[in-house]
Amino acid sequence: MEARGFDAIVVMGHAKENHILNYLTSRAAISEGIVVKQRGASPVLVCGSMEREEAARSGLAVETYNDYNLYELAKETGSLFEGRLRMIAAILERHGLKGVVSFYGLGDPGQSYMMLSRLAEMLPDTTITGETETSIFDEAYTTKDADELAALKSVAERTNQVMTETVDFVKRHPVQDSRLINEDGLPLTIGDVKRFARARLLHYHLEEAEGMIFAIGRDAGIPHSRGGDSDELEIGCSIVFDLFPRELGGGYFHDMTRTFCLGYAPQEVQHAYEQVMAAFNEVMKTLAVGEKTYRYQDIVCDVFEALGHPTIRSDPSTTEGYVHSLGHGVGLQIHARPRFSSFAEETIQPGQVFTIEPGLYYPDRGFGVRIEDTIYVDNEGRFHSLTPFPKELVVPVE
Amino acid sequence: MEARGFDAIVVMGHAKENHILNYLTSRAAISEGIVVKQRGASPVLVCGSMEREEAARSGLAVETYNDYNLYELAKETGSLFEGRLRMIAAILERHGLKGVVSFYGLGDPGQSYMMLSRLAEMLPDTTITGETETSIFDEAYTTKDADELAALKSVAERTNQVMTETVDFVKRHPVQDSRLINEDGLPLTIGDVKRFARARLLHYHLEEAEGMIFAIGRDAGIPHSRGGDSDELEIGCSIVFDLFPRELGGGYFHDMTRTFCLGYAPQEVQHAYEQVMAAFNEVMKTLAVGEKTYRYQDIVCDVFEALGHPTIRSDPSTTEGYVHSLGHGVGLQIHARPRFSSFAEETIQPGQVFTIEPGLYYPDRGFGVRIEDTIYVDNEGRFHSLTPFPKELVVPVE
Repeated sequence: MEARGFDAIVVMGHAKENHILNYLTSRAAISEGIVVKQRGASPVLVCGSMEREEAARSGLAVETYNDYNLYELAKETGSLFEGRLRMIAAILERHGLKGVVSFYGLGDPGQSYMMLSRLAEMLPDTTITGETETSIFDEAYTTKDADELAALKSVAERTNQVMTETVDFVKRHPVQDSRLINEDGLPLTIGDVKRFARARLLHYHLEEAEGMIFAIGRDAGIPHSRGGDSDELEIGCSIVFDLFPRELGGGYFHDMTRTFCLGYAPQEVQHAYEQVMAAFNEVMKTLAVGEKTYRYQDIVCDVFEALGHPTIRSDPSTTEGYVHSLGHGVGLQIHARPRFSSFAEETIQPGQVFTIEPGLYYPDRGFGVRIEDTIYVDNEGRFHSLTPFPKELVVPVE
Repeated sequence: MEARGFDAIVVMGHAKENHILNYLTSRAAISEGIVVKQRGASPVLVCGSMEREEAARSGLAVETYNDYNLYELAKETGSLFEGRLRMIAAILERHGLKGVVSFYGLGDPGQSYMMLSRLAEMLPDTTITGETETSIFDEAYTTKDADELAALKSVAERTNQVMTETVDFVKRHPVQDSRLINEDGLPLTIGDVKRFARARLLHYHLEEAEGMIFAIGRDAGIPHSRGGDSDELEIGCSIVFDLFPRELGGGYFHDMTRTFCLGYAPQEVQHAYEQVMAAFNEVMKTLAVGEKTYRYQDIVCDVFEALGHPTIRSDPSTTEGYVHSLGHGVGLQIHARPRFSSFAEETIQPGQVFTIEPGLYYPDRGFGVRIEDTIYVDNEGRFHSLTPFPKELVVPVE
C-alpha cells in the first residue's frame, strides 16, 4: 500500500464472484460486506448482523450494519443508497481512514460512480481513488504460496480426471453413418457430452463457474464458441474441448484444452495440429524467469507467420490463423496476471501459474485446433505443467 | 428512459452474474461486452471479435473491439484501461450518444469511478450518471410477462421436486442414538444431504448459483447460516432448508424454505412453527394489489410482537425473534424488487413475483423456524403460490 501511496483500502459489494472480498474474508459464506484496512492495521469486516457468525469464520474483526444504524439511516432518508453512503462515511471515520483511500470489489458502475463521487464531496480531506492498471490485488495474486499451489494442483488433478472420463464416455459410443450414437440409436450430441462432464465435475467437487467449450467443426474454428447443444459428434471433425472449472462454491481454477478428431484426422487438421504442437513446444523450451511475457506471444507469431498463417500481430482484425493471445494467469480468477499479450508489460516470475495455449483457427474450412496446459513456475525457475492429459489428436472409435 | 431524463444508457462489464448485460443480450454466451442504447434507437452490442458469433445470437446489432482498434489503443497507451476508455468514448461518439448517459452493469467500484470520472472530463457536453434508487432495469424486471412466468414456473416445479427428493433421501436413513446413519453405519451429515441435493439440482438443469441453506439447531436460529457440512442430523432438532437455485447457466430463480423436525418436534419449536404459520397465513389473507409492501412487514411485526417476540421493528439490533424483512422479488436476481422491508416505498402490482418468508429465531435456545413461498400476482390481482411443497413440521423417520 505504501508503494502505491494508499493510506487505506476499502473492498465492497456482493460476495458472489467478488474475488477480492472472498480473498480477504477467506471465502466466509456472507452475501455481501465491506472490508476496510488502514495501512499497518488489521482489516475489519462490516456485514449484515444475520451473517455475523459466518463472517466471524473469516478470522477478521467483525462489525455489523446495525453498529452503524444502516436501517435507521435508510428509513430516515427513504433511500438504502443514502443509508449506505452515510454508513461508509461513518466506517471510514470510526476507523480513522484518511488521506488516499482506494476502492475495490464488485458493483454497478453507474452506482459506484455516484457513490464515490458523493463520498469525495462529503470527505473533502480524503482522496477517493481506484486502480486502473495492475492492482495491489493483481500483484498479491500473481505468485502462489505452497497452500495456494496445493489447491491449484488438486483442482488440476480433478479437472484432468474429468477430461479423461469424458473422453472415455465419448469413446464408448459406436459409430453409425459417420456419427456417434446413443443406446437409443439417436445421435450423441454435444449437450449429452456436456451433461456428462458437468455431473463428473460435481462429483469431484468442481463447478463450471465460467462454462466450458466443447465445439466441433466450424465452431471449433471460433475460439470462444461454446459449441451447440444439439450438434452431433461426427467422426473426422476437429473438436476443441476447453475445460476450466473451479473449486465448488469458489476458489481456484484450472484451465486446459485438447483438440480431438474421432476415428481419424483429415490431413489439414493433422497438419495444423502439428504446427500448434510445434509452437507449444517452442514456447515451453524457451520460457524463462525474468523474460517479458509478450516475447512469447511474438515467438508464436513468428512460428505461425513463417508457416504462412495470418496472426493477430500481422492483422489485428484477422479471424483466421492465430487470433488470440498466448495465455493468462490462473488463480481465483480464470483470467489473471500475467497476461501473455502483445501490450502487456509483464514479467515471468517464480510462483506464477499461467496457461500456454497456442491455436490455429479456420472456421470457413470447418476446423480449429488449440492446445492448452496450465504451467507452474517453481522457486528455482523451472516450469511444470499441471496438465498431464496426453496430447493426441485422434481418439479411436469403433 | 424519457421519464428519467436519460438520452442514452450504457451497460458494461464481464457477463458473469451481470444480470443487466445478460438480460439485454438474451444471455448470449459472451464473456464481456458493452451495450449502448440511445433513446428511440435499437441497442448495439460491442464485444471481442472471437465472440462475434455467440454475440450475434443475442439478436442485437454487433460490433467488435477491433472495429474500435482496442488493441492498438491499448498498445499505443501501454494500458488496457486507457484503451477501453478511448474505445468507450469512440462508441458514444459513433452512435451519437449525447446529453445524459446513464451507466449500468458490473465492475470494480474504484475502477468504475476512475473510468467514468475520466469520461466525464473527456466529454464535457455529456452528463455521466448512474441510478441509485429503483433503476430502469429494476422497474423492467418487476413485472413478468407470460414467457418469464413460464420460465419461473418451470424452475419452481423443479425446485419443489428437488426438495421432495431430498427429504425422501433423508427419510430413507435409519435412526441410531438419536441420529440418522448412513449405510456404512456413520452419521449422515449435512454435507451428505447437500451433495445429494446438488446432484439432483444438476439433474433438473438447475444450479446452486447462490448456495443453499440446510442448517440444524442453533444454526437454524441464524437466518443466513448455511449449515455446517460435518453437522449430523439429530432427531427433534429444527432444520431450516432454504433452496434458491437458478436455471443452469443463468436465468430465473426460485426461492423456498421449509422447516423440519425429524421424528418429533419439541413443544417450543412446534409452538413457534404454528406462530410463523399464523403470520404467513395472515399475510396471504391480506395481500392486495395497490398496497405498500411495508404494510405486510408491519402486519407480521404486529402478529409477533403481540405474541411477545422481539422484532426488527421493536429493536433493530435484535438477534432473537423476527429479525429480517418479510420478502423480496424473485427473477433474474435472487433479491429483486419489490422489497418487503420497512423502508421500501414499493407497491404490490400484477405481474410481480416475490417471496413471503416470516420466521422466528432463537439461536441460544437452539432453534429457528422459517416458512417461505414464492408468490405470483396475476393480472386479476389474485395471488398464487409457486411453492406447493407441503408445510408440515415433523418428518417421520424409522
